[in-house]
Order: sequence, then structure tokens, then C-alpha cells
Amino acid sequence: MKVLLPTSVPLAPVSAPTGHDVVFVDYDVSSPVPDEHTDAEVLVAWGNPRAQLADSARRLTSLRWIQALAAGPDTIAEAGFGHDVLVTSGRSLHDGPVAEHTLALALAAARRLDLMHDAQLAGRWASELGGLQSTEPSRFPGLGTLRGREVTIWGFGGIAQRLAPLLESLGAHVVGVATQAGERSGFTVITEDALAGRLAVTDVLVMILPSTPATAHSLDTARIDQLKTGAWVINVGRGTTVDEAALDVALRSGTLGGAALDVFEREPLGSASPLWTAPNVIITPHAAGGRPLGVEPLIERNLAAFLSGSPMVNQL
Amino acid sequence: MKVLLPTSVPLAPVSAPTGHDVVFVDYDVSSPVPDEHTDAEVLVAWGNPRAQLADSARRLTSLRWIQALAAGPDTIAEAGFGHDVLVTSGRSLHDGPVAEHTLALALAAARRLDLMHDAQLAGRWASELGGLQSTEPSRFPGLGTLRGREVTIWGFGGIAQRLAPLLESLGAHVVGVATQAGERSGFTVITEDALAGRLAVTDVLVMILPSTPATAHSLDTARIDQLKTGAWVINVGRGTTVDEAALDVALRSGTLGGAALDVFEREPLGSASPLWTAPNVIITPHAAGGRPLGVEPLIERNLAAFLSGSPMVNQL
Ligand SMILES: NC(=O)c1ccc[n+]([C@@H]2O[C@H](COP(=O)([O-])OP(=O)(O)OC[C@H]3O[C@@H](n4cnc5c(N)ncnc54)[C@H](OP(=O)(O)O)[C@@H]3O)[C@@H](O)[C@H]2O)c1
Ligand SMILES: NC(=O)c1ccc[n+]([C@@H]2O[C@H](COP(=O)([O-])OP(=O)(O)OC[C@H]3O[C@@H](n4cnc5c(N)ncnc54)[C@H](OP(=O)(O)O)[C@@H]3O)[C@@H](O)[C@H]2O)c1
Repeated sequence: MKVLLPTSVPLAPVSAPTGHDVVFVDYDVSSPVPDEHTDAEVLVAWGNPRAQLADSARRLTSLRWIQALAAGPDTIAEAGFGHDVLVTSGRSLHDGPVAEHTLALALAAARRLDLMHDAQLAGRWASELGGLQSTEPSRFPGLGTLRGREVTIWGFGGIAQRLAPLLESLGAHVVGVATQAGERSGFTVITEDALAGRLAVTDVLVMILPSTPATAHSLDTARIDQLKTGAWVINVGRGTTVDEAALDVALRSGTLGGAALDVFEREPLGSASPLWTAPNVIITPHAAGGRPLGVEPLIERNLAAFLSGSPMVNQL
Repeated sequence: MKVLLPTSVPLAPVSAPTGHDVVFVDYDVSSPVPDEHTDAEVLVAWGNPRAQLADSARRLTSLRWIQALAAGPDTIAEAGFGHDVLVTSGRSLHDGPVAEHTLALALAAARRLDLMHDAQLAGRWASELGGLQSTEPSRFPGLGTLRGREVTIWGFGGIAQRLAPLLESLGAHVVGVATQAGERSGFTVITEDALAGRLAVTDVLVMILPSTPATAHSLDTARIDQLKTGAWVINVGRGTTVDEAALDVALRSGTLGGAALDVFEREPLGSASPLWTAPNVIITPHAAGGRPLGVEPLIERNLAAFLSGSPMVNQL
């Protein structure tokens, strides 16, 4: 059995379970798979352009399983692979880096590092953002500190459960939103039925939802209107989950305190997008993840499961 | 006994130990203390301008104790109060907010939120800072992630011991530097004798030193040269502890990866300072602290100790 491994991520040697005839072949994700390897049964994908995936979907006629290394393998779902091709995601490989970037955005938003940077570019000491803070906290154009803030994380999966304790150790109170209510990792999780009441007290709404038909424009005008006035929105999940036009309106009207966005409805964000110039927006170029960690054990574990017919991890 | 309480910080009612005749009087820190209150024996100080302190030093002739709310009450030491006036600091009141700001700076430096903001201002999607990161990590102009990074915190007191676990939970390895070696809060602490070797492997040097004669220009050309090439320097302690001219040279030559600075040799940082335009610098306007937390219990505890003649907290 032939397994294609991408050269887009440095990999330590991957081993197959003993007693199986497995050949690992490296491939360049930016080019069509060479003719001599279109007999591969397994494709490991990381950063493959859409055209390369569409080409693979046509030419890899023996393909039975795709191990994506992305946590949200949207492009693979859209590439036209047969329904008999199993897809497993890279869920969990990005928990640490994405949680870290989200924390960076939350802190930048709270402390208004963006405004401090604007002042720096102008060679100006922003005394309105420094010095004594406690006398008139409401005059500070950000949250100031995450301590005592109500943070709601919409999409309370792997990344969120890594992020939540970090926010909590800074003194924030975190509630998650997912498809099932209950307690996870010690945090209260609610469902969308109960979201309106929670949004009304939310200082920071962190979106970490996958892109699915059910999550399209989850954050729309109605939900934005339910948010506490002056709340910040952070999106590190997928751009499809936020109605950007509605977000832009709320930013310009001042309903929202601001937004820190790593993902967009269309990426790269086009130069015509009004978000570039909306007030109180921090834009990062889909930079939260991009550094899968623990790839080899995931491939090995799923390969063994695949060969023995047992349940695989992260199956979509 | 009269205790002057500053109106520069909102305070809940402060109570005196029973059996003592204590009068609390609010005062405006930005004006001279009114004549009828120059008989105060205790002054609580927060954000008093230098001139107000110098005036108080002259006119408050009954003064016996100053409770500063700043962690580093340098201005009080310099105001000319008599040597018989006890001074206690606000050490510990700022641990949370300053640790939070320092974490914000470390994450902004790692992820290069500053460069992302520059791109945003130009309406440009900074693809060189986002997307797949793992193939050529050395091309990323920051540390990328704090995971696996060696962080050295020079000045391992209250703020540092709040910060260190936050950095550790992001996967960094933290070593402290203080006047005594040993283990504190589970972290290895070294003294300056052993600093050269540690600097050679340091990715991020965080300075949280007080301003004292012994810490003047602690980070100078010799120490910068001992740092690992490409390391970042963060200073949230006092500007006096860093030789800014030497820092500027190292930033311009590329010896240092960058610097994130909240404090400066002279504040506000003058418009003529070369640091405004040095490469890879993040400047915040002494904004780390400024929000004392837990003021009332500190005043009450020290007041009781003062009245009973027992040891006070944070005595200088
Ligand atoms: N910006 C980046 O660089 C970057 C990097 C990696 C990942 N991502 C994105 O982040 C997303 C989440 O990653 P993850 O690893 O945390 O995924 P995950 O572990 O699968 O978690 C997804 C969470 O979303 C919830 N959810 C899904 N559909 C929902 C719906 N219709 N209503 C309410 N909740 C819903 C899930 O609820 P249940 O738990 O109840 O099922 C789960 O809690 C990925 O899908 C990916 O698109 C972005
Ligand atoms: N940027 C801001 O807004 C802001 C806000 C608050 C405070 N600060 C500054 O931060 C400083 C530290 O605050 P903190 O509350 O953490 O103080 P702290 O608890 O007193 O800690 C100071 C640390 O510095 C070490 N140290 C002092 N002199 C030294 C020397 N000559 N060589 C090596 N180490 C030395 C001490 O070592 P030992 O433990 O061995 O004594 C201690 O670990 C304050 O003094 C203040 O200037 C800045």
C-alpha cells in the first residue's frame, strides 16, 4: 500500500505496523502527483492548493483515505473526492499554536496594542493609554485587562479547551458554546438556545467554529445585537461563520468595541474589503495555526487503525 | 492620627483597628495638600506628581509613614522626605496587570502583531506572516510561538512569579535572575554571576528590575553581546535598567531580534529618541500597571502593624 507524505511539513520518519507492506512516498503538494504515484491508497495533505486537490481527486483512482493535517479540512471536502474516500482531520494538531494566537489577539484587544502602535508610528507617547488607569476606566478605549471579563467561546472543541484555562488564569470567566450543553474541562458549556442571554453579558466573544452549512453566518446582525454594547469579537475559526457585512456595520456604528480577525469570508482578504478601514479592527493574515504539532503519531495511529479496520481518530 | 487617602484611585472604605483614633481624609494628588491637613502622619500616595511630593515633603512636618501604591516608588525616594519617614511600597498590587501586559508584549513580539498591523494599515494581506509556517520557520521574522522558547526573567519578584507560570503554560521554559539563587515558585533562579551563560541560550529576555543604583544600565552593551543572536528584549521594570543607546545600536545592527518596551530612561519618551524608528521595536506608554488591585487590605494591614509597632509589608 502506498502512502503519499507531503513535503510541506518537516516529518520525522513515519513507521507502519509490522506485517503490512506499506511504502511511504514524499510528494510536493504544489504540483500534480506524478503519474507513477497515482496508485496511492493514502494521501496525507497539508497546504495543498485547491487545483492540486481537484487534480488528485480525478487521478488518484485507488485512493481510500485522506489524512488532512488541517483542523478544518474544508478544501478537501470541496475537492470532489469520491464519497468512499475516508477523510480524517488534523484536529488537535493546532490546539497550542491557535490558542496562543487567540490569546495574543485577546490581549492586544484588551490593552489596545494596535492604538499604541499607531501612536508609535507617529512618534507620539500615547499618554491616554498609559500611566494611571484606575480613575476613569471607562475612558480607556479597550477592556484594559482580561481580569474579571466575561469571555464566551463559540465552538468549544480542542482549541477552545486549550485556550480557556489560559484566559482563566488571567482572571477571565469563560463559558463555552457547543452542540451539547454540560461541563467540559471544568468549564460551563451552553448550546445556542441559551446564547442570547449569555451574549448580553459577554465582554469578549471568541469564535472558533468550523466551516459547515450549520455554522454559516452564525454571527449575524441578530446575534451581534444580542451582544453587550462595546463587546469585542475575535474570530480564529473560519470566516464563513461571521457575516462580515453585519460586522462592519456594527463596528462603524460603535455597537461593537472592536474585532480581532484572523479568518475571513474570502482569503486573502481583498483590498476592497471595508474591514481594512473599519474602526477598532485588528487583522492578522490567517496566522493562528500553520504549525501542526504531533503529526507523525497521528499518522501512525490512524494508519494502524485503517489497516486493522478499527475506528480512526478525527474521522469526518 | 490623620491618614491622607488619594482620590486618584477609587477606594472602598478603609477601616482602622479598634481602639485607635484614626481620621481618614481624602486628598487630590495633583494639588498641594490643604493647610488644614499638613498635620497628617500618614500619606497614601498614588500618581502624585513630583512637585506635589516635593511640596508634601516640605509641608507635612508630622509625617511618619508613606504608603506608596506603586510597586516601584522611585519618585517618593527622590522627593526629599526625611529619613525618619517610613516608606512602604505597593509591591504585589500590580502583579496581575503587569504580568498580563508583559504576556501581551511577548505574544505580540512572537507573532509579530506589529508587522501585521503595519500591513493592515497599508491594506495588505501579509501572506509572509500567515498561512503555512512550518516549512521555513527561520524565514518568519519573529519567534512564531513561545512554545519551546527559552525565556529569562531578570528580576524574579512578585510580577515575574505571576508571569512565569503563564509563559510556562504556553510551552516556554523560564529561568529567573535575582540577588539569590535557588528555586522560587518551582522555577530555577540564578544570580548575575551565572547570567552570561544563560543569556547565550535566551530567546526572550524579560527585564522586571526595580530602579536602584545597583540596577542602573544592567542591560548594557556587554550583556547585549552575551545574548543569543536574534533574541528579543522586553522591559516592563524601569527604563533606568537598560542602556537605551546600546539597545538602539543592537536593534539597528540586527544583533537583537527586537524589543518590546513599556518603560524608558526618560518618560514620556522624547520625540527625538531614536527608539521610535529603530527596527523591530514595540513601544507602549508605561501602560503595564496603573491599576492597583487589593489596595484597601494592604493599607489596613500596614496601618495595624504601624500602630502596634510590628513589621510592615513592603517596607523599603
Ligand atoms: N485560524 C487558524 O489558523 C485555524 C487553525 C486551526 C483551526 N482553525 C479552525 O478552527 C476550527 C475549530 O478547530 P478545533 O480543532 O477546535 O475543532 P473541534 O475540536 O472540532 O471543535 C469544534 C467546536 O465547534 C462546535 N460546533 C461545531 N458546529 C457547531 C454548531 N453548528 N453549533 C455550535 N457549535 C458547533 C463543536 O461542538 P461539539 O463539541 O458539541 O461537537 C466543537 O465544540 C476548525 O474547524 C478550523 O476551521 C483555524
Ligand atoms: N511598567 C509598569 O507599569 C510597572 C508596574 C509595576 C512595577 N513596575 C516595576 O517593576 C519592578 C519590579 O516589580 P515587582 O513587584 O516584581 O518587585 P519585586 O517583587 O520587589 O521584585 C524585584 C526583583 O528584582 C530583583 N532585583 C532587585 N535588584 C536586583 C539586582 N541588583 N540584581 C538582580 N536582581 C535584582 C529582586 O531580587 P531578590 O528577589 O533576590 O530581592 C526581585 O527578584 C518595580 O520595582 C517597578 O519599578 C513597572
